[in-house]
Amino acid sequence: MDIRIGIAGLGTIGSGVVELIRENALVIREKTGVSLSVVAIAEPAIDSRPDFDRTGIRIYKDGMDLVSDPAVDILVELVGGVVFPKKLVLAALENGKHVVTANKALLAKEGQEIYQTAARKQLALGIEASVAGGIPVIKTIREALVGNRILEIRGIINGTCNYILTRMAEHGLSFAAALAEAQARGFAEADPTLDITGGDAAHKIAILAALAFNTPVDMADVHVEGIDRIDTNDIRYARELGYVVKLIGIARERGDAGIEARVHPTLVPVDDQLASIRNEFNAVFLRCDFLGDGMLTGKGAGSRPTASAVVGDIVDIALAMRDHNTMPPFFSSARKRPLVPFGRTENRYYMHFSTVDKPGIMSRITGILGENNISIASMIQKEAGSEEAVPVVMISHTAVEENMARAIAAIDALPEVRKPTVVIRAL
Amino acid sequence: MDIRIGIAGLGTIGSGVVELIRENALVIREKTGVSLSVVAIAEPAIDSRPDFDRTGIRIYKDGMDLVSDPAVDILVELVGGVVFPKKLVLAALENGKHVVTANKALLAKEGQEIYQTAARKQLALGIEASVAGGIPVIKTIREALVGNRILEIRGIINGTCNYILTRMAEHGLSFAAALAEAQARGFAEADPTLDITGGDAAHKIAILAALAFNTPVDMADVHVEGIDRIDTNDIRYARELGYVVKLIGIARERGDAGIEARVHPTLVPVDDQLASIRNEFNAVFLRCDFLGDGMLTGKGAGSRPTASAVVGDIVDIALAMRDHNTMPPFFSSARKRPLVPFGRTENRYYMHFSTVDKPGIMSRITGILGENNISIASMIQKEAGSEEAVPVVMISHTAVEENMARAIAAIDALPEVRKPTVVIRAL
Repeated sequence: MDIRIGIAGLGTIGSGVVELIRENALVIREKTGVSLSVVAIAEPAIDSRPDFDRTGIRIYKDGMDLVSDPAVDILVELVGGVVFPKKLVLAALENGKHVVTANKALLAKEGQEIYQTAARKQLALGIEASVAGGIPVIKTIREALVGNRILEIRGIINGTCNYILTRMAEHGLSFAAALAEAQARGFAEADPTLDITGGDAAHKIAILAALAFNTPVDMADVHVEGIDRIDTNDIRYARELGYVVKLIGIARERGDAGIEARVHPTLVPVDDQLASIRNEFNAVFLRCDFLGDGMLTGKGAGSRPTASAVVGDIVDIALAMRDHNTMPPFFSSARKRPLVPFGRTENRYYMHFSTVDKPGIMSRITGILGENNISIASMIQKEAGSEEAVPVVMISHTAVEENMARAIAAIDALPEVRKPTVVIRAL
Repeated sequence: MDIRIGIAGLGTIGSGVVELIRENALVIREKTGVSLSVVAIAEPAIDSRPDFDRTGIRIYKDGMDLVSDPAVDILVELVGGVVFPKKLVLAALENGKHVVTANKALLAKEGQEIYQTAARKQLALGIEASVAGGIPVIKTIREALVGNRILEIRGIINGTCNYILTRMAEHGLSFAAALAEAQARGFAEADPTLDITGGDAAHKIAILAALAFNTPVDMADVHVEGIDRIDTNDIRYARELGYVVKLIGIARERGDAGIEARVHPTLVPVDDQLASIRNEFNAVFLRCDFLGDGMLTGKGAGSRPTASAVVGDIVDIALAMRDHNTMPPFFSSARKRPLVPFGRTENRYYMHFSTVDKPGIMSRITGILGENNISIASMIQKEAGSEEAVPVVMISHTAVEENMARAIAAIDALPEVRKPTVVIRAL
């Protein structure tokens, strides 16, 4: 069976998909009987790619021409952004083409309309490449774990942040220096905002939460904090207490209260599997009622790993095209579940207080914490720092987010507290 | 859509499958639109399960009656053994029933006939539960990574052995004591032979190699060594050199030379991801041309994790039944690739020599190694042991298995060598 692929966007991933199909088409045909060929590509900047081998490929400059090409069976959307890709994907579906996309922003923001359109047209939608690159987390959640209630997902799902935090932790680099290094090594973009502010990870955890808990998730409800204010000192203090700092996307089943979906820097115990995920690697930890705990790791970005996920989706669709007329709906939720307000989530907390070294201050701080039902699990006190502020670091037992916020506001209002308290959540 | 399931064998896994479907049928229906129900069970020893709730379930004592029950859409084979399950599965396929099985021995020994029968009858075959319990390694290899050439698989795929080795390493237990503890805690069977001799892991690596490299694999060609001769001292020496000892199943692409498939105790560097897989957990590391390196971890056995895999397969089949008439063949290899003879495989080696403390012996040993193209990467020498034999431990650079065997035979023939040299392969 011959499957004709059209690719919108010949950037890093698009080039990887062409490369994979050229290198491995025979392997794929031997394994599955499916013959893949890229028949058309839309890329406005194609003139800047004079070396690209166009043999057998029609080139369009406008993606809309690609989605009307009747010779394309599957549209692979690798454009980036939201507005134009949405128009492109919906037009492709209306034209009867199956769609594969790696566009996490599109799916997080406009996923419901796309899922519904695909279901109405009985067309397939492949989104594996949108989260954690080549790691098959979407397939695992939707298919392998379909018999489970998923209880919790914890993901290191932004390789840029993980690279930066690894370099800060292992080489004592400042955030700015680690970011510059990540950019130099190709692990961060020229404009890294979406990565370092947690926005990219938030898109991904929203997609995973929607699939795991079978509910639409509004991005506006997802609490997001990035790594751009993480200080090397806090990474060092956390290490002394037995933790590493990671940007973790968390999605959690809370029963009648609803679900949680959030992204923030998080202290992970050094003996937790997630702590060992270094540099640009990604990992997704899953806790389920039948499977128990499982984890998937691998490269979460890059041309070839992401192409692996795109082609996995293409072959799934191709095999289904061969054998059916209609596709099962990609997403079938009948009801929208509420997101637990962030203030009502529960966490453990790392707190770094900067106070003057004065008798009684510790008892005032611990008193305020106690009034807010926050108890302390461990603590270190350092020698006075340069500005005569004494760093005191504590880790709490599990507490409620809004109680913690109230306590920290009261503590930061104390005259002995010299700098806003640093608070980082902990697993 | 209602899917009627018949289960042959109401042991640990069968009970887990019934439990999962009873607990989570609604969740599964919400996510997929598929309604699962267990309509029949075959279990000769059903009378010993008076507490089992038979509501809505026809009970057979003979599995052959189950496979002729026209009300069963999918047969789940959880019997154990090879001869009778083979008869059962082939009869089910001939009767037009899709089959799900967790039976690794059956698939490793008789897989080709079963795959071919399913393909001829255009029926589905689900085998996820046969390797690594709830971890979706079969789906990942067959579907998610279909665009890749798989270069190497390394698996901790026997939880019993991993539990025993973990206890030996972390608590200094002898093999016998760790085995007894594993039996007491339910991680080893009363007759643990198939686990500790590596036979169970060999079945699993044979299945993975067949799927990854798209070729039939004869069990007789798979080199197998178990953990039953591993001594606590060697685990300790390995640790001093920076390694942990694991039972690893290895499948490797060797190009024109063929493929490798083998199971043996293996030294894993402590900073390798596989080294952190402890106790009864399983893990499968995959190296591919496009994905790069990835790993899946989780519980590789047990009632509920294995039921998770069985039900994942059932839902896949149910969704396909809804939408097609025929199933793509499970296994499509046209050619059989040779297995590289074990003597031609390449490894690094841990060697523990027991010699008398006599001038010149070290130079004779290293001389024999050198003559066989084996060079030394690291070495420790211990104080003389109780029998006046001095333990000398070395780790080699990569060498050829048959050269190593020749060198060790020559070394063990030296009069100064008091005990057979312990050789363990290393990653």
